[in-house]
Amino acid sequence: MVEPGTRTAARRRGRRRAGEDTRAALLAAARVEFTERGFDGATVRRIAERAGVDPAMVNHWFGGKEQLFVSSLEIPLDMETIHRELLSGDRDELGVRIVTLFLQIWDRTGGGPLAALIRSVAGHEAAARMMREFVGKLIIGRIVARVAPDQVELRAALVGSQVIGLGMVRYVLALEPLASADHPTVIAAIAPNLQRYLTGPLD
Amino acid sequence: MVEPGTRTAARRRGRRRAGEDTRAALLAAARVEFTERGFDGATVRRIAERAGVDPAMVNHWFGGKEQLFVSSLEIPLDMETIHRELLSGDRDELGVRIVTLFLQIWDRTGGGPLAALIRSVAGHEAAARMMREFVGKLIIGRIVARVAPDQVELRAALVGSQVIGLGMVRYVLALEPLASADHPTVIAAIAPNLQRYLTGPLD
Repeated sequence: MVEPGTRTAARRRGRRRAGEDTRAALLAAARVEFTERGFDGATVRRIAERAGVDPAMVNHWFGGKEQLFVSSLEIPLDMETIHRELLSGDRDELGVRIVTLFLQIWDRTGGGPLAALIRSVAGHEAAARMMREFVGKLIIGRIVARVAPDQVELRAALVGSQVIGLGMVRYVLALEPLASADHPTVIAAIAPNLQRYLTGPLD
Repeated sequence: MVEPGTRTAARRRGRRRAGEDTRAALLAAARVEFTERGFDGATVRRIAERAGVDPAMVNHWFGGKEQLFVSSLEIPLDMETIHRELLSGDRDELGVRIVTLFLQIWDRTGGGPLAALIRSVAGHEAAARMMREFVGKLIIGRIVARVAPDQVELRAALVGSQVIGLGMVRYVLALEPLASADHPTVIAAIAPNLQRYLTGPLD
């Protein structure tokens, strides 16, 4: 006779395997749908249909279309963390919070995933379009628009340029001393420039 | 009978073809040599040997080891122009001159070559190492060191992060409005941040 704990573990393992299949199928379907129709045009219903699963599985596995989109880009970001970390606190400290979160996320995953993402964006117009949408809908719409006094899109693109450039130099190019600099050094150097892009005068 | 002008043109074409073979052989040899030994370790003599041509051809076609190195990276830069444009004038305006020259160079060639360069750096450690050497020897040694009051390497890496990020967003990602913004707008937005990296306080 199998003892209850073992049976439960076995059942859980089985369920998890099936769940991971569902998750992978949704990610694959999402990549096709977002690439073909963009973030706005894509629907959760059609993605689920492509994946051959119930639309409720999108909420179950990703918490919604937005996080499914981010996951399909393979950016190790959790939109809830982003909102919680970036949108609370003083608007004059948003530059500091952006650099801090960026370093926390990418120091953990290292340069490999970022290099893959950058190669993808530099090599495929579909990936570039998805990244533009990511910046446009999520970064601009959710974060920069909350603090920027004007020229929201330009400010968001400028923030993007500095953040992407930091990622390239620290993780992909691995140029010293920025590659190994500790967080306080990087934050002190870069946050004021980000803050100017967010809330300072641009001309 | 062939008229003199035609004969001269034919001879010139012939000479140019042979010259272009020499140039291409030197570039191919330089890529191998710089990849294997780095900028300092590589010698003009050994590159010429690999290419099967006289070492004098390096000066003839590239003006020296430095420009051969830049050419082998496929960056559309002419070191003489860089020195002339960047190192004359007020040190407090270097940020403006860097953005201006960067826009002039890359607006002309478009995003294709830059995307290829970035894919290469993100995909191959050898390309990343060559790019690190390029920034280290030529950008830091020749430009940033002339104006930075301290922390020369950190300042150079920070300048690199903003310049590379601008290239990614304007030309590769093509994120609006930065992708189509006119030069005065881009310069007004970005030059002050570069200038802070070059000569401002970093902490």
